[in-house]
Amino acid sequence: MKTEDVTFQVSYSDTDQMGFMHHANYLKYYEKARWDLFADMDLPYKEIEEQGHIFPVIECKINYLYPAFYDDVIRIKTEVVSVKGARIQFQNKMYKEDGTLINEALIAVACVNKTTQKATMIPVDMKCKLDACLMEVRELLS
Amino acid sequence: MKTEDVTFQVSYSDTDQMGFMHHANYLKYYEKARWDLFADMDLPYKEIEEQGHIFPVIECKINYLYPAFYDDVIRIKTEVVSVKGARIQFQNKMYKEDGTLINEALIAVACVNKTTQKATMIPVDMKCKLDACLMEVRELLS
Amino acid sequence: MKTEDVTFQVSYSDTDQMGFMHHANYLKYYEKARWDLFADMDLPYKEIEEQGHIFPVIECKINYLYPAFYDDVIRIKTEVVSVKGARIQFQNKMYKEDGTLINEALIAVACVNKTTQKATMIPVDMKCKLDACLMEVRELLS
Amino acid sequence: MKTEDVTFQVSYSDTDQMGFMHHANYLKYYEKARWDLFADMDLPYKEIEEQGHIFPVIECKINYLYPAFYDDVIRIKTEVVSVKGARIQFQNKMYKEDGTLINEALIAVACVNKTTQKATMIPVDMKCKLDACLMEVRELLS
Repeated sequence: MKTEDVTFQVSYSDTDQMGFMHHANYLKYYEKARWDLFADMDLPYKEIEEQGHIFPVIECKINYLYPAFYDDVIRIKTEVVSVKGARIQFQNKMYKEDGTLINEALIAVACVNKTTQKATMIPVDMKCKLDACLMEVRELLS
Repeated sequence: MKTEDVTFQVSYSDTDQMGFMHHANYLKYYEKARWDLFADMDLPYKEIEEQGHIFPVIECKINYLYPAFYDDVIRIKTEVVSVKGARIQFQNKMYKEDGTLINEALIAVACVNKTTQKATMIPVDMKCKLDACLMEVRELLS
Repeated sequence: MKTEDVTFQVSYSDTDQMGFMHHANYLKYYEKARWDLFADMDLPYKEIEEQGHIFPVIECKINYLYPAFYDDVIRIKTEVVSVKGARIQFQNKMYKEDGTLINEALIAVACVNKTTQKATMIPVDMKCKLDACLMEVRELLS
Repeated sequence: MKTEDVTFQVSYSDTDQMGFMHHANYLKYYEKARWDLFADMDLPYKEIEEQGHIFPVIECKINYLYPAFYDDVIRIKTEVVSVKGARIQFQNKMYKEDGTLINEALIAVACVNKTTQKATMIPVDMKCKLDACLMEVRELLS
């Protein structure tokens, strides 16, 4: 089981006038956590793009359980839950400093050829590393 | 059946280095479309907040079918699909100028008391207007 | 004298927890207004990039006179104030619906070759159109 | 001389389709660095707001010397350069990992009463701490 914990602090610019982190910004932090996990697997996303593949998000499901506030210290856990064809699915969980689960997400990306912009098989070496860290799929948003 | 069509043009700042609209930004446009629908029902969101209620997003599911590009003219259709207790669910569809469906979403918001920050019943006059425009729930992301 | 007036409405996602439009977001609207002016001069920025030039911002000065609030209808006036070598300078003024000037900026962009990423002369046809609309330089932020 | 060095890594969502960090996002990182400096002076901005003051940006001047790219490790240096009446001015410098100066800014904020939204004198204890760290004003953007 391969997971990666990333910690960040909610920026003032992440908030909206409700006083919460704006709901779109969770996706930015999940993205950061996702590529940090890849970096940790020796698959730096920057190099993946330079070698001709991009991995746009093709699906997401997010549950906002509790708001995140300015200056909160947040921890994100990222797991690879499925790798099939061109598609990789991640499960994310976001925790406050006291351990409270405040947000959870399932996010799928697709392997796309940068030039043709068409979906393509995940490169073999990446596939091997991902399979090695593959998790049992768990129902997140039942 | 109450729906609202909103048109916008993808800004340069909405893009990322893939050359697509960044996946988090769809939520910003769906939010805009949602409150434009409310304004059209004579429920301006600004006044709702001034009267003591906020409507944070509590759940979203998004399918990214095709990317949106810089300068694309995009049309968003918003429908109210369910109103229960403190919860309102919206269905969004995003189209390119040629009519292609490029993105679809189910987004739920909750009625929250601005002071106590606790979920609360939707105000009666709003409930009436929402019920009047309520749609048959359709399975979006089966 | 060539100017362009662009109108937009402040989005909820543009605000921060002060209840104002976040100060970084003015640059996004000035960018939109800038390329709208170019489109109006038959110089669509999308095509400029496709033809191999990019125009990154190299300098900005912004005066925040009054805050913009959620849902405010805002008008932006954009003027070309100087075109020299690879550099184009714009002056922006932002007004509330009642005509109050709330923000003003001087923003300079540079013509850069997309492939080499080096500054380069502005293409001749663009230079002609820009010179034709060139304004007397006025001291904005003396 | 009081300064604070903050390090961050450019996020994918910070980029635009030029492949650079979008020019508006520098202001977000300078904001983060500014309040990190305040926290380091035992003036946590979150508590300042809770005690009834907000510090909106009222002026900025930014020089974009070199672009920042996705995944770059960036260091920001923040200095207080003047404290007068309700106004505090900061000087920021942004460096790449190899020490290259890539961006510099002068940013002024004003002390504003959260309730009345009018400019007000900086609270005495904050004024003392700021004066103690006050820098010689240096010409940044001559």
